[in-house]
Order: sequence, then structure tokens, then C-alpha cells
Amino acid sequence: MTIVKPSTLPGFMELLPKDQILFNEMKDIIRKNFEKHGFLPIDTPVIEKSEVLLAKGGGETEKQIYRFSKGDTDMSLRFDLTVPLARYTVEHMNDLSFPFKRYQIGKVYRGEKAQKGRFREFYQCDIDTIGMGELSLVNDAEFPVVIFHTFKDLGFTDFTIHLNNRKILKGFFSSLGIEDSMNVLRTVDKLDKIGEESVLEELGENGIGRDSGEKILEFIKIKGSVDEILEQLRDLKIKDEIFQEGLDELTQVVGYMRDFGIDEDCFDIDLKIARGLDYYTGTVYETTLDNYPKIGSVCSGGRYEDLASYYTDKTLPGVGISIGLSRLFYQLNEAKIISSEEKSLVDLLIIPMDDCIHDGIKLLSELREKGVRVSVYTEFAKLKKKFKYADQTKVDYVIVLGEEEIKTRKYSLKDMKTGDQEEVTFDELVERFKK
Amino acid sequence: MTIVKPSTLPGFMELLPKDQILFNEMKDIIRKNFEKHGFLPIDTPVIEKSEVLLAKGGGETEKQIYRFSKGDTDMSLRFDLTVPLARYTVEHMNDLSFPFKRYQIGKVYRGEKAQKGRFREFYQCDIDTIGMGELSLVNDAEFPVVIFHTFKDLGFTDFTIHLNNRKILKGFFSSLGIEDSMNVLRTVDKLDKIGEESVLEELGENGIGRDSGEKILEFIKIKGSVDEILEQLRDLKIKDEIFQEGLDELTQVVGYMRDFGIDEDCFDIDLKIARGLDYYTGTVYETTLDNYPKIGSVCSGGRYEDLASYYTDKTLPGVGISIGLSRLFYQLNEAKIISSEEKSLVDLLIIPMDDCIHDGIKLLSELREKGVRVSVYTEFAKLKKKFKYADQTKVDYVIVLGEEEIKTRKYSLKDMKTGDQEEVTFDELVERFKK
Repeated sequence: MTIVKPSTLPGFMELLPKDQILFNEMKDIIRKNFEKHGFLPIDTPVIEKSEVLLAKGGGETEKQIYRFSKGDTDMSLRFDLTVPLARYTVEHMNDLSFPFKRYQIGKVYRGEKAQKGRFREFYQCDIDTIGMGELSLVNDAEFPVVIFHTFKDLGFTDFTIHLNNRKILKGFFSSLGIEDSMNVLRTVDKLDKIGEESVLEELGENGIGRDSGEKILEFIKIKGSVDEILEQLRDLKIKDEIFQEGLDELTQVVGYMRDFGIDEDCFDIDLKIARGLDYYTGTVYETTLDNYPKIGSVCSGGRYEDLASYYTDKTLPGVGISIGLSRLFYQLNEAKIISSEEKSLVDLLIIPMDDCIHDGIKLLSELREKGVRVSVYTEFAKLKKKFKYADQTKVDYVIVLGEEEIKTRKYSLKDMKTGDQEEVTFDELVERFKK
Repeated sequence: MTIVKPSTLPGFMELLPKDQILFNEMKDIIRKNFEKHGFLPIDTPVIEKSEVLLAKGGGETEKQIYRFSKGDTDMSLRFDLTVPLARYTVEHMNDLSFPFKRYQIGKVYRGEKAQKGRFREFYQCDIDTIGMGELSLVNDAEFPVVIFHTFKDLGFTDFTIHLNNRKILKGFFSSLGIEDSMNVLRTVDKLDKIGEESVLEELGENGIGRDSGEKILEFIKIKGSVDEILEQLRDLKIKDEIFQEGLDELTQVVGYMRDFGIDEDCFDIDLKIARGLDYYTGTVYETTLDNYPKIGSVCSGGRYEDLASYYTDKTLPGVGISIGLSRLFYQLNEAKIISSEEKSLVDLLIIPMDDCIHDGIKLLSELREKGVRVSVYTEFAKLKKKFKYADQTKVDYVIVLGEEEIKTRKYSLKDMKTGDQEEVTFDELVERFKK
């Protein structure tokens, strides 16, 4: 038989079991938090009709899509979980209750240029709340609360959720006579990367005079506590309806967040935050880890006016956030923020002598019955090989089972880290290891 | 904007949240059992290199594969979790400990003709144990134990795990001078569908005389308790090495299963069971629900001599089982064996009067803090609309929050099923609903 070299495609993450366990733990924590906050699960197909998935048109994204035909059908792999949500919400509209709060955790596909830390298949963990016609600002306030609890549960102590409202930016630019706010936002977004002077130059190239440019820079640099910033914004007394609407929304959202009991020091207002997508229309969020600014935003999102205008003439406003779990996991691992130490799913390994395997299995069953996470080495082999397996799988404790132990029901429990041994009874084993 | 009709492709299952919750519960139970028995998680890419995925060649399966190119790359969607396991095991061989016990729960893709209950995208839940060179029969015995606990936890009381060993069949046929046992097995597999006479005819067409045909039918109909069947097989005194090897293996596997403490009435030996795939070489399993024979096998698998001969010259024997969860869920739902009643993820809904939303959120946070699964209705609306939402989401209990309740901290708790109301304090709410 010809032997093919087994390998995966570049840009596709695949983990060893030790890392997979850690990854799954993170995924479970995220899911638990989504559910605790009342978001319902959905699970849409990975493959959709191209005409449906690409109804909105994709621009840059469209080139990255995995699109193919089978028979007469033109199909594509989903590139995010938002378009499938729009499709799902409209398709099942009559069977859903609004506000519709859903979560979806699943893989999405983008045929990007493969490079370190960029994946072609990656997990997104999304929550969105969709209204029918209207959706109150309470919902905008709930998302930072979910982010807060999720990242706390993930073990992070220092992170900041940055809030802004696109209307504030749009209104402020408009008060300077600038109508194409998207262009300005894109340039301003590069501030940290390219510096003030280059931003002013680029704004100039887009027809925005130095005077306005400097006002913009001054504006987005407004600093202070949340309440100080809100006060400074009010004091500007900008006569623009959109600006005032945005300011009022942001003030309300902060008020509701406090009702939710969010920690005061885990969020701020950052007028730089705009989010790249033209899609967002009100509240926007980004989340950064205070001690690891280089990682960038680990959870972003915002409010949009209309989820699914390409599928229905009903207006479906929504607000949502997304955690790019594969990328986050990769970065945390690279930065050694999470430990990918070998972990065993069991706490105890029984190593029976070759002629004691039957009794090994019996002991295993009795311990499992009592709630102990335990495993048994099943192969006939030299004791050295058996202990090598215990070493490799990083199990913490081992019992060697021979005729003496079977007769006396007393076991020598070996701590694999220290090498210490102590004699224990069955009941002591249960007491010690039961979950 | 042009409106595109939102719909999914035929053959792709998509559930409403109420069904998705039930589906996820089943998936969680399966996963928990896999982990409890020491199987480690892996998560391979959905897309693989075609040359790797199809190294073995596929025959019937190959036509069903979603295969496409992007740039220069010829890629395919996985059609099962076994070929990816083979690829994974060989690719990461040096980082794994053997026996390598892994589970994988994920979607696979087959472009089959779409028909009721057949899906093109479906979940498989697989566990396999892979040995390096050798793998003891203890492992063959562990799989029925996992099936037993999993289906018990899924809520089934009456199911039977049918055991057989392919060597017994192969050896028996060989003793009749029949060497191409696969052909006979395929014909015999149809017994329930086409009846004895047609089986004898079809065997005849394959050059097997009526005399041998009748002996085969007599053989596969051997009935009795597990020990009775084993005794009858021994009493046949068939002088064929393969037969005796199979009988010895089956006897050992049953012995180990008893060590594991499996319920005696949840398994039997069924000499008809062969499994379609030529892949299996020893122990084989099928599982049926006693009261729903029409559903067919809900969990099958077996022992194979060599997992990955097309990727490596090392011999990797293994044994595994698979649960086709999407199909199982669909069938259980169709047969009304599982209930897909609307279920809420929360136990309690707070409905604040329009001017009490701030206090509604505060009460929500206090209750969540205490571990109550609770939600709040966030929209400004008439009370009637708010109660309609409570009705639709099938939450069991509702509190309407007005100024009186805020002042007194006494709440009128409404049972949505009976309509009964009772006055409760905050502490009573916590006591009643905390998880």
C-alpha cells in the first residue's frame, strides 16, 4: 500500500489532547456564562446556499470565502456567525420570541493568507439580542456584564471593556462639516500604529483641514473617569442631534450597567473605539487585557440598526459581541498566559500486574461507582512500560495492584510528583478522590 | 435592496432553540460519559487535504464527498471521524501515549441523496482506543460499558448491546469451505428484510449450495443466554483456528465486561451481527432500543486490526464505537420518544413596569448573584405584550415589579402553569430557585 504523509492544511489549528482539554474548558466557561445570562443555543449549518450567504455582498470577505458546487448547487462555508443568525432569525421568525437572545459557538471559515496566529478555520463565540422593530438600551448594557463575568470566570483579573457610541463620533464629525465619518474613523483607528502626524496627513489627503484634524485628535483623546468623560462631552455643548442622541444613549447604557452591578474599574469610555465595520450604528465595545495590550481586542461588538434587511423588510435591530476563541487561545498560549501543561482527565491510575487485570477492572468499577475519576492500564507489559504510561499521561496518583493488595484490600498509593507512597484502604481512596 | 429568501440547503438539520437545548443535553451526556471513561478530546479540522483524506480510497463514500479547490489546494470535507483519527494518530504519534483513548464529537459531511431522516451534515460522537502494535481485549470490553452508562444516562431503560466476533463467522464459513466471507455476510445481513428463502437463493447465486446455506442459517440463529451461546459454540467443536480464536476472544470480552460490572440483561450475543464494513476484524457491536426495533442500531462499532496502514508502516490496532447523534435525535423526536417541549433556560422572569426597569435589573443581578437562573424583560411595552413573551418562552414563574414591590421588597410570584400567585420575600425566592 502506498503511504501518504499525514498532515493538515496550513492555517488549520489542531491541538494535542492536553491543549484541547484547556481549550474545551475555556469554551465551556464561555457557554456557561452565555446560558446563565439567558441566551438560547442555535447551531446553524456550516454550509449554506451561496445566494443566501452572500446576499449582502461581501467586498473583502467575499474573496476569502470557500465556495464550491456539488451537482447544481452553489454553496459556501459560513465566514461568520452573524449572516447565519440573520438568515435563521428571518427563516424562523414566527417560531421565535423577541427580544430573541441567542448564542452560537462554532467554527467559521476564511481562506485568508495563512500566517502566524491567523486561522482559516476558527471558533467564534457569539451572543446577540435581536428586537422586532425596537430594542431597548438595557440590552446594550447587558453585554459588558456578560463579558465581565465571562473573563472573570476565565481567570482574568485585569481587563478593560472600552465603550463608545458611534453616534457621538458621527455627530461630532458632522459638527465639523465632515459627513463621510467612515473614512475618518478608519484613519483615526490607526492612531496607535502610525502616530498623530501621519493621521493628520492622511486626514488632509481626505480633504480634512489641519484645524479640523487637530480638533478630532483632541476630541478622541478626552480622558478621565466614565462620569468625567460624560460630563466633558456634555460641556462641549455640541449642537448636533446625532451627537446628543449618542451621548444620551451612552449615559443610559452606563446607568443600566451600574444597575447590573458591574465592577466600576473594569470598564471605561474610549472615544477612539469605532470598530472597523460600517455595520455598527450605536454602542460599540472592545475588550483588552490590561497587562497584554499587544494582543488587541479579545471581545468586540456593538449595536446595529438592522440585522437582516437583505432577507426581510421588517426592521430587526440588534446588539451583539463575539469572542474569537481560536485566536484568543493561540495568543494566550503563545504569551504563556495560560498553561498548557499535560493534564490527565483522571486523578488516579490503576496499574494491575499482568495476572491481576480482572481485579484491576473490578476495582476501577467500584471506584467509578463512587465518583472517582480513575483509569486502568489494560495492556500486558513490563512494569517499567506501565509506569512510563503513567508518566506520559501525567496522572497524579498510581496504585499498583498485585495479589497482596487484592487479598488485603489495602493499596499503596503513589504520588507521581513527589514519589511518596502511603498505604490506604478503599474507603480512604474514595474519600480522597471522589468529586 | 433586493430581498433574498432565507433558507438552508436540503439535508441540513437546523433546530429551533427548544430542540437545540434538548440536543445539547444529549451531546453533553455523551461527552460526560466519554470523559468519565478516560477518553481524551481531540478536534480535527472539518477540511482536510483530499490526498490525505482519500488516501484509503472510498468507493461508495467517495462519490458523496464534498471536494473542491481553492487556489492550488485540493481539499475535502471530512465524511467521518475515523480517517481524521488515523491521520491525527500518525501525525502526532510521538506526542501521544498508547493505548491512546480519544473521543471526538463533531459534524461530518456526506452529499447523499437527501431523504427523510438522512442528513448531509450530521454529528458523530466517536470513541476509539488505539494501541501501538498490540491492544488487549480489555478494551473491547470497555466499549459496551461506555454504551451502557451513556444510554442509561440518556434516559433509556430498555436497550440491548449485541455482541459478536467476526472471526467466529469467518472461521465457521471457512469450515464450510467458503473463503469469501464478506459476500456471505452481506447476504446474511439482509435476513430480516428478505427472509430465509431469498437468502438461500442469493447464497446459491454466489455458489454456496443449499446444504451449506442451511447450515449458515441454522448457525446464525443460535439462541440463548450469553453463556448458553458460548457453550453451544464450544460444543460445535469446529476445527478451525480462526473460529476458535474468535470464540476465545468473545469469551474473554464477556468476562471482562462482567468485571466492569455491566448489567447482565443489557447485552446479548447475536451471531447475525457482522457490520457492513470490511474494516472490522474481531469484536463487533450494535445497540438497539428494545421497544423501537425499527430505529435500527443507535450505536455500533468494533475492533480493527490496523487503523492507519495508508499513513504509516507501524501497526495500530484499535477498537471504537460511534453514535450518529443527528440521526438518533431526529428518530427519537419523530417517534416521540423524546419530548421537544418548549423549555426555558431560566426558571424565573422579572417583568418590570416601564418606569421600574432600573430596579428590575438590580433585582435580576441580586438573584443571579445567589445562583438563581433568572431573566428580565427589557422592552418598554404594554403588560399584555410582556406576558405574551413570558408565555412564548415557557418560563415557569413570573414576578411583576412595580413601585409597591420595590418599596416593600415583597413580590407576587406567579406560577404560569396554574395561574396561582403567592407573596414571597427575596430570601424565599432565593431559597426556592437557587441551583
